[in-house]
Amino acid sequence: MYSTSILPVSATIKKALQEKIDFKTKPIGSLGALETIALQVGQIQNTLTPILKKPSIVVFAGDHGIVKSKSVSPYPQEVTQQMVLNFLNNGAAINVFCNQNNIDLTIVDAGVNADFKENENLIHAKIAKGTKDYSITQAMTTNDCLLALNKGKQIVAKLFKEGTNTIGFGEMGIGNTSSAALLMSYFTYTPIEDCVGKGTGLNDDGVTKKGQILRGVLDLHEKNIKNPMDALATFGGFEIVMMCGAMLEAASLKMTILIDGFIVTAALLAAQAINKNIVDYCLFCHTSGEQGHEQMLSFLNAKPLLNIGLRLGEGTGSAIAFPIVQAAVNFLNEMATFKSANVSEA
Amino acid sequence: MYSTSILPVSATIKKALQEKIDFKTKPIGSLGALETIALQVGQIQNTLTPILKKPSIVVFAGDHGIVKSKSVSPYPQEVTQQMVLNFLNNGAAINVFCNQNNIDLTIVDAGVNADFKENENLIHAKIAKGTKDYSITQAMTTNDCLLALNKGKQIVAKLFKEGTNTIGFGEMGIGNTSSAALLMSYFTYTPIEDCVGKGTGLNDDGVTKKGQILRGVLDLHEKNIKNPMDALATFGGFEIVMMCGAMLEAASLKMTILIDGFIVTAALLAAQAINKNIVDYCLFCHTSGEQGHEQMLSFLNAKPLLNIGLRLGEGTGSAIAFPIVQAAVNFLNEMATFKSANVSEA
Repeated sequence: MYSTSILPVSATIKKALQEKIDFKTKPIGSLGALETIALQVGQIQNTLTPILKKPSIVVFAGDHGIVKSKSVSPYPQEVTQQMVLNFLNNGAAINVFCNQNNIDLTIVDAGVNADFKENENLIHAKIAKGTKDYSITQAMTTNDCLLALNKGKQIVAKLFKEGTNTIGFGEMGIGNTSSAALLMSYFTYTPIEDCVGKGTGLNDDGVTKKGQILRGVLDLHEKNIKNPMDALATFGGFEIVMMCGAMLEAASLKMTILIDGFIVTAALLAAQAINKNIVDYCLFCHTSGEQGHEQMLSFLNAKPLLNIGLRLGEGTGSAIAFPIVQAAVNFLNEMATFKSANVSEA
Repeated sequence: MYSTSILPVSATIKKALQEKIDFKTKPIGSLGALETIALQVGQIQNTLTPILKKPSIVVFAGDHGIVKSKSVSPYPQEVTQQMVLNFLNNGAAINVFCNQNNIDLTIVDAGVNADFKENENLIHAKIAKGTKDYSITQAMTTNDCLLALNKGKQIVAKLFKEGTNTIGFGEMGIGNTSSAALLMSYFTYTPIEDCVGKGTGLNDDGVTKKGQILRGVLDLHEKNIKNPMDALATFGGFEIVMMCGAMLEAASLKMTILIDGFIVTAALLAAQAINKNIVDYCLFCHTSGEQGHEQMLSFLNAKPLLNIGLRLGEGTGSAIAFPIVQAAVNFLNEMATFKSANVSEA
């Protein structure tokens, strides 16, 4: 069993932070969720003056064996590889939003079914050329699952060493809403049919068919899954497992974690089953348009910042929401107090 | 009657814009509201490559006669003046968020009950030192109302001349949720009790009392109000009326307008009663925590970007949401297409 030590966020600083928030020149509570975020980031960093240092988004890419035998996505598997190249060429949505908001972007080949040339902007961390088909067997061996978790851990540890204290995650992997739906069903005790959505654009018939396929997958494996590691190894993919290891490490290093949409939250479901304390380090950036995400979030008692129908993945929701998180930290550090500004109180 | 000519946004460019959006390397529709915004801003600017130039927020400040005789706010009137100084000293929430997001900030004395020293960052546009008490008489004369509308128009025309094509509005005025509630009741045919909220922090008793006071105000004036100008002159305040004139001018100059919370939306209710076309130029930034705002928005068929419990005013919701609007324009201009990136389509 994989384990990580994650300390709870600071309880001792909470009262002083709340006072600092309440003495700012604004009615009490009038900055809504920004006040909650300021409090949380202050507690994570155990300081009255938190800073978001070198914000980074890491996009993990991986392919899924299921795509070869079953029709779970309208896109061919090659799109995973093509989109990785698009990321490296600065052409994807996540590039645009990271460029706009000064977020460092790291692309990781966690298990794409293609050979990439050496590229300084790509981390080669391929465990295998795609997972095995989980309609037949486990997506990966326990050993490969462990390898992926550890690789994710190393990637985050390196970014932390380089100065990052705020991190988001994204993914690319044709077929990975199926993996995420299976993980959701397992970790939240939800019937698989309620976890399955349109993904990149299935029609209603496609969704029903996807649900039937995944019902079969669950039935095949369910009795053999004894712990979170088993679930990750069985349902994959490599990008999700590596992200799970990355998240756990981020929390153990007391980083602020930006949670994106359906796939990223599925990785978090596994991570919090491994260590519950991780959730206190997470900011939930948006409610995805992908069916099932809302229920994942409610399972986690999460109140996301945005609900604007994003369902693109890549970490785009985190990149778009980042300025709101920055705004929360900025008001805490920069706003005047009633006293300093000579403003009368209520 | 005040009137402005506002052309409808371009219908001819719509199809080409939608195609440009759909050919980007992402599943169709997967950027949710960002796609709607990209379309709208493209139509406003009648181009496939819109730009948000010199984004600006103008904060109008004014005092309200009602505050002197009736208990509608927990804060004393002096806070309006004190907060204007806080804006000029860069200490308020709106300063922090405008600084963060590179938004130009303009502060306007529309009718504060104080004398300000000359200050290059303050536009002196005072109509009077606060409105008259509308529990006794009209808040302002028809002539002063017209003066305020025209002053707002001039301020926006100047910003437009200086290069701004994207503009948000904010306000400061102790007591102005009462004005806004009265305008809401008049323009949306909603019982005043459903328009009244806690403002800067009344308790439940305070809200009930505020509702009773404003019911009396409505009963006193209702029969004399024949048109939107009458409503503005009766219920004030100067900051709201000036903002209304500013908005109408912004739309007539084909600027993109960022709509903030309860007070700003009340000004828009008056503006759209004067010229309906204005709404096509508006992006709705957030749903305020102030009771009544949600119903205003639903009256306008608006789907706001954020719903995170903001209820501070000052234009803060617009400043915080601005990067999302920028992200919409950026993806339209910067993302690769399936063809340019060699990505297979669905």
